Amino acid sequence: MTKPDSASLPATLYGVRWEGGLDDGHLVLLDQTRLPKDVVYLQVRDIEVLRTAICDLAVRGAPAIGIAGAFGIVLHLVPLAKAAKATTASALDTAYAHAHERLVSSRPTAVNLRWALERMRDCFDRHSSHLTPLEMCARLLMEAKRIHREDLELCRRIAENGAPLMPQGGGVYTHCNTGALATGGVGTALGCLVEAHNRGRKIQVFSGETRPLLQGARLTALELQHAKVPVTLCCDSAAASLMARGKIQAVIVGADRICANGDTANKIGTYSLAVLAKHHGIPFYVAAPYSTFDLSLADGSLIHIEERHADEVRRPHGVQMSPIDVPVSNPAFDVTPAALITAIVTERGVIDHPTRERVAALMRDQASEPAV
Amino acid sequence: MTKPDSASLPATLYGVRWEGGLDDGHLVLLDQTRLPKDVVYLQVRDIEVLRTAICDLAVRGAPAIGIAGAFGIVLHLVPLAKAAKATTASALDTAYAHAHERLVSSRPTAVNLRWALERMRDCFDRHSSHLTPLEMCARLLMEAKRIHREDLELCRRIAENGAPLMPQGGGVYTHCNTGALATGGVGTALGCLVEAHNRGRKIQVFSGETRPLLQGARLTALELQHAKVPVTLCCDSAAASLMARGKIQAVIVGADRICANGDTANKIGTYSLAVLAKHHGIPFYVAAPYSTFDLSLADGSLIHIEERHADEVRRPHGVQMSPIDVPVSNPAFDVTPAALITAIVTERGVIDHPTRERVAALMRDQASEPAV
Repeated sequence: MTKPDSASLPATLYGVRWEGGLDDGHLVLLDQTRLPKDVVYLQVRDIEVLRTAICDLAVRGAPAIGIAGAFGIVLHLVPLAKAAKATTASALDTAYAHAHERLVSSRPTAVNLRWALERMRDCFDRHSSHLTPLEMCARLLMEAKRIHREDLELCRRIAENGAPLMPQGGGVYTHCNTGALATGGVGTALGCLVEAHNRGRKIQVFSGETRPLLQGARLTALELQHAKVPVTLCCDSAAASLMARGKIQAVIVGADRICANGDTANKIGTYSLAVLAKHHGIPFYVAAPYSTFDLSLADGSLIHIEERHADEVRRPHGVQMSPIDVPVSNPAFDVTPAALITAIVTERGVIDHPTRERVAALMRDQASEPAV
Repeated sequence: MTKPDSASLPATLYGVRWEGGLDDGHLVLLDQTRLPKDVVYLQVRDIEVLRTAICDLAVRGAPAIGIAGAFGIVLHLVPLAKAAKATTASALDTAYAHAHERLVSSRPTAVNLRWALERMRDCFDRHSSHLTPLEMCARLLMEAKRIHREDLELCRRIAENGAPLMPQGGGVYTHCNTGALATGGVGTALGCLVEAHNRGRKIQVFSGETRPLLQGARLTALELQHAKVPVTLCCDSAAASLMARGKIQAVIVGADRICANGDTANKIGTYSLAVLAKHHGIPFYVAAPYSTFDLSLADGSLIHIEERHADEVRRPHGVQMSPIDVPVSNPAFDVTPAALITAIVTERGVIDHPTRERVAALMRDQASEPAV
């Protein structure tokens, strides 16, 4: 356990990792519920412990949950495979179904978790009749590691594509958390910042605290400190003042969903930053994997703005800070029109000044390219 | 004591008030340290209790502190005057000096407190040699009430001038606290909102919570509920999204300082709102008394941006929410250029699209007009 003062930081933070081999291996998860106060890694060797970690948000971020779930299948099957007397892995059918059910139900709305678990099950279904139980486990571990590696590779490519867009020196403003804690790799927008820093670009990151849940304060500031990237925390409302005083040379954020025309939904406050960046003549970048594009949505007007619970605003971190019954507007995200976006950075390349045609062109390139 | 749920609210909140006559009178202060949880009024009959209330921020807001200080002088002198055997109030010289010193030292940087106490001392100096001790106290009580009444009148005029600018129906966004709790009257920007509501304009106020100290959540939301003005609380970063969705028809804020050309310093986040309002074609109003103008400052570039303590951002309401040693940018206020301001509302009139010439014209009108 390390206290998060910058002197004693481990070199990097990660949300999820497999440690060891098939026989002695286990999952390591950063307990994100204890951040930023304590940096504690959980050693997970049991599917029910993993299930609790997912339910309690000890592990969070869609890609990270999917990766953890995939490794969870292996965790559950290895001891059973060792004890099994059967010659093929089909004997593990019932155990497999149980593990799948326990994990998929831990976060029913998590698309990445469901996707990763289905990919694992496909692998099992294809091979279980011609592999021994232990061979099957080895094959499943390989598949889980592949899922992890693909995400890592995807983040790496986004970071490589985004880093050259960062200023050679100067301030870059970011919002919410888009880093290693939410993904299998270095993250999206945050990955671009870390990569730019590692390439010697002398950037100073300004992390907006990101009310109401303060992911910028709790996670982004911590991750950047660990990566030794100079970071300054500020209230969301200070961004405009920092821009006016010449302290910001670029803004980079992640994305929840990108429409066919480039309109981008992301954490509440993103659109505000895009308008402010435009007013101050500062480039505004979005970094997100290709899978974030939803071509079924022609533009941002079709995105329903979900309202989150009023108490996130009325009772920050459990402390009552407003009249108990005051009505609240607490939109989860906002929509930034493509016209305010300088470029969208994906693992496949950068879309400058995104338009419907340019997004479509990237989709076509994607279709003709081999998978990672 | 009333719990702040909207069903059981007293009709109005006030920060400071004198109750009773000379003989039996006392000061009543709303204990703002207990807001928004509890609405508790303190009955103050002793100068040391008042001093503690000022030191502990039970009473806050520059005009309110000045008014409380003026009444504090009376509180201290009345019992001494009753007991005095002397024929003139000059006998109270030493007691007066003591009271002045105890009060002025309770908040050494509060300009309004110093100003109000000096006005009280001038009154004492002018009359103490020809009035009896009790007559002198009556005169001082009159002077304190006059200071209070002037502030009340000033707020009333600002509210009258600002109310017609509010939309006939629709949303008005405001920031920080500019209400009765900080002044002797109905407040500045908040006064305009209450007055517009009372005149039957069907406004819906959106109160930004105003990080880092959450005056919007703790005070403005509460005051508007008490005044029965429909109010919705939101995170500061949600303002842009509300504007984009057509929910905001005007923005109105207060001011800390206004330069000779109309550039306005106010709570951090104000400038952000001005840029966003401009982008969405929404009028942006500043409401402030004439005394807020500082003609010694030609424009906003001359205003030094004071940084407040990092822990206001790192430890909101005492809860550690970021790495303990992360650097912080926590500017106390920002500067809104006059070009982004639709109008400045003062007690003397409204300056449309403020410029150096229009500000100067108001100052000239002021010079020729009698005092309130």
